[in-house]
Amino acid sequence: MNTRELPHVVIVGAGFAGLTAAKRLKNAPVRITLVDRNNYHLFQPLLYQVAIAGLVPSQIAYPLRTIFRKQKNLTFQMGEVTSVDFDAKYVKLNGSVIAYDYLILAVGGETEFFGMESVRENGFQIKDIESAVATRNHLLKMFEKASREADEEKRRAMLTFVVVGGGPTGVETSGALAELISHVMRKEYPELDIREARVLLLEAGNALIASYPDELRKATLKLLQKKNVEVKFGARLTDYNGQRVLLADGTEIRTHTLIWTAGVRAAGITKRLGVEAAGSGRVRSAATLQLPGHPEVYVTGDAAYLENGNGQPLPMLSTVAIQQGKAAAENILRAIRGMEQKPFRYKDPGLLATIGRNAAVARIWGLSFSGLLAWLIWVGLHIYRIIGFRNRLMVLINWAWEYFFYDNQVRLITRE
Amino acid sequence: MNTRELPHVVIVGAGFAGLTAAKRLKNAPVRITLVDRNNYHLFQPLLYQVAIAGLVPSQIAYPLRTIFRKQKNLTFQMGEVTSVDFDAKYVKLNGSVIAYDYLILAVGGETEFFGMESVRENGFQIKDIESAVATRNHLLKMFEKASREADEEKRRAMLTFVVVGGGPTGVETSGALAELISHVMRKEYPELDIREARVLLLEAGNALIASYPDELRKATLKLLQKKNVEVKFGARLTDYNGQRVLLADGTEIRTHTLIWTAGVRAAGITKRLGVEAAGSGRVRSAATLQLPGHPEVYVTGDAAYLENGNGQPLPMLSTVAIQQGKAAAENILRAIRGMEQKPFRYKDPGLLATIGRNAAVARIWGLSFSGLLAWLIWVGLHIYRIIGFRNRLMVLINWAWEYFFYDNQVRLITRE
Repeated sequence: MNTRELPHVVIVGAGFAGLTAAKRLKNAPVRITLVDRNNYHLFQPLLYQVAIAGLVPSQIAYPLRTIFRKQKNLTFQMGEVTSVDFDAKYVKLNGSVIAYDYLILAVGGETEFFGMESVRENGFQIKDIESAVATRNHLLKMFEKASREADEEKRRAMLTFVVVGGGPTGVETSGALAELISHVMRKEYPELDIREARVLLLEAGNALIASYPDELRKATLKLLQKKNVEVKFGARLTDYNGQRVLLADGTEIRTHTLIWTAGVRAAGITKRLGVEAAGSGRVRSAATLQLPGHPEVYVTGDAAYLENGNGQPLPMLSTVAIQQGKAAAENILRAIRGMEQKPFRYKDPGLLATIGRNAAVARIWGLSFSGLLAWLIWVGLHIYRIIGFRNRLMVLINWAWEYFFYDNQVRLITRE
Repeated sequence: MNTRELPHVVIVGAGFAGLTAAKRLKNAPVRITLVDRNNYHLFQPLLYQVAIAGLVPSQIAYPLRTIFRKQKNLTFQMGEVTSVDFDAKYVKLNGSVIAYDYLILAVGGETEFFGMESVRENGFQIKDIESAVATRNHLLKMFEKASREADEEKRRAMLTFVVVGGGPTGVETSGALAELISHVMRKEYPELDIREARVLLLEAGNALIASYPDELRKATLKLLQKKNVEVKFGARLTDYNGQRVLLADGTEIRTHTLIWTAGVRAAGITKRLGVEAAGSGRVRSAATLQLPGHPEVYVTGDAAYLENGNGQPLPMLSTVAIQQGKAAAENILRAIRGMEQKPFRYKDPGLLATIGRNAAVARIWGLSFSGLLAWLIWVGLHIYRIIGFRNRLMVLINWAWEYFFYDNQVRLITRE
C-alpha cells in the first residue's frame, strides 16, 4: 500500500491530548499531520515556576520536531488553525488548508476573565510562555522599583502581590511566590524591609482546591499560612485598574500586581467552529469523544465537554487530556478496522498540588498525604513526566540546587 | 568612621569592565553604587550561542544582585543613565540623580551600522539578549516557513543565511549556524532538501579575524569551508531590503536573513557626555584611564579610546575591559590614599575563536593552535569564566550533550 493512500489524521494542538494521541498512533497505518501555533510542547503544570523565576522556559518546553524526529508517519506543521470545514473535511491554517480523513481537535484552553475587561487589561496570567515570562519580569521589576522608592505607602503597593483563584495554580503560585520573597528577595534587597512585602490569595468561595478532600484543603490552607500567604475567602473581585483591587464587599487593596488564575475556558477557536458549546465554551462531544454528526472528528482535553458518570463535567486537567488523547487515537484505529467505538471513561489517578519548597498535598491510591512526603511524590512524578532526558536532568539540578541553597537563579528581567 | 562618609564610587555599566572594577573594590574603604539598565551581567562572548539556539539566555546571564549579595559595600540600582554632570559630579538616571566622588564609566558598546539604515532596519544583530533571541526566533521560523513553501526559488531565499563581518563573532556565528543546519535541521526537517540551505560569510577585507596571526587566519578559513560556510572576501554591502543583499560589485543575494557583526561603537550615551570622542565614538582617556580635565572620572572598556604602545587603539575585547576595570579600581584606591596614578598597560592574554563543534583557533603563550585542542582550551576557558557554579554546570551539561548527540535542544520560537 502506498503511504499516500493511508488515512490522514490531522491533530490540531500539541498539548497533552494532541501529543498523547500522536504518540499512540506511532505504528498505526495512518499518516499524521500535527499542527500547533507553537513549535514546542509546553509542560503546563510547571508554568507557574517560570512566572516566579524558578525555571526558565526551555526547561518546560520541548521542540515538537525533536519529540517526533523518529516517528516517520508524522509531519509537524507550525501554524494557527482559523477554521474547520466539517463537511468538506479540511482545516484552514493561515494561508493554507489541510484535508483530513480523521480530525482530533485538541486545542486546549485559555484564560477566562468572565467579562472583567479591567482584569484582562491590567492583570497578569500564567497561560503560555509569553504571559509567564511577562509575569516574571513584572514581579522582579516591582522589587527594583520598590528598592528606590522613598514613600512607604507607594513602596507597600509595589510589594503587594495579589493572586486570584484558589485552585491548584493559585495555590502553587502564591506559595512559591511567598517563598521566593522570604528566602531569596530578603537577601537580594538588603535595602528593603522585606516585611513590607505581602502575598494575598483571593478566593471567591470558601475553600481552596475545592475538588480535593476536606483534610487536604485544610492542610493546604495551613501550609500556605505558614508561608505567610494571606488567604481571603469570599473575596469577589469587581475591578482592578492596575493600582488597586476592588472587592464586592468594598475592600480596596493597593497593588500593582494581580495574577489571575481564577478561570479557564476552551480556546477561542472553538467559538468559530459553529458547533454546540457547553459550559466554558467547551465543545460538547459524545461519550466516544466524537463530535455529534461528524463521527470522524474527535474532541479532547480542555476543549471537550463531557460529563462524568455523576453528571459533572470532567475537569480541565492534564490527566483528563492525556487519557482522552489516547482514547481518541484508539477509537480512530477502531474506526479504521471497522470496529465499534468505545466510550471514554476517566480513571482518576489522584490529585497533587505543591505549596512551595518541600510542601505539597496529594491524594493517591485513596490516601491523603501532605507535607514533605507529598512534595517528594510531586517532584518525582513531575520530573518523570517532563519530556526528554536532558530536560529532566536540568530541572532536577535546578530543583536540587534551589532546595539546598534557597537560590533561584533565573531572575532575569528581559525586555518584551 | 561612619560609612556615610566613605568616598562614593559610582560604576555605570555591569559588563566586564564594571563588574571587575566593582569586585576589585570589595574590601576597599568606599561605598559603591553599580548602575546598569539590565539586572544581570551578560557573558557576551557566548551570546552568539543564544542566536543559534545552542544556549538559553539564563545560561549566560547572571543576576547582579546575586553576584554581589555578599559584597556589603555595594548597592545595585537598575536604570539607564541619561547624562552626567562632570562639574557638579552626579549622574542622571531616568527619574533620579546619584552624586559621586569617583565615577567609572563602563558603558560598553553597541552595533555600528556605518549609516546603513536599511541594514539596521532589516538585519539582525547579536548585541544583547533581546537581539540574540530575536535572531534565534527568526532563524527557526525560516525553516518552518521553508518546510511548507512549494516554490523552490522562494524556499532557497528562506534557507540562505548571510552573516556579515569576518571578525570573531561572524566566524563563530557562521560556523555554528552551518553546524546547526547540517547536524540538527537536517534531521528535524525531513521534508526539506537540506542542501538548499546555505550559510554565507561576507567580509569586506581580504582576511578573517584580521588581528590574528596568518596561520590562524588560514586555519579558520579552512575550518569554515569544511563546514560548508561560503566565505566571500572583498564583499562590500551596499543595501539590504529584507529580501536581497546588494554588494558593491553588483552581486545580488536573495535572503531573508542578514546577521550584521561587522561593526561596534561605544554606547550611545557617550555622545551626550560632551567629551572628546575618538574613533567609533569612544571617549578619549588618559593613559591612567582618567577623563582629561576630570581626574575623578575613569573611562574603561569598549567606551574608552586608548592607544597601545604602537599607536593602535586597544581593541573592543572583554580581555581589555577586564584589565581596565581592575586598573581603574586600583587607581581610585591610589587616589584615595594620595598616591600617584598608574598608567594602564594591556597584557595580551592570547586569542581564541571557535568555529563550531570541536574546532577552534587559538593563540596562547606565543603558540598557535587549531582544531580540537584549541576547541578544548576554548571550552575550558569559557566555562571557567562563566559566572556562578550552577551556570557553569548547566553550560557544561548542555555542551557535553550537544557534543555527544549533536542535539541542540532550545529551539523554541517565542513571541516577542
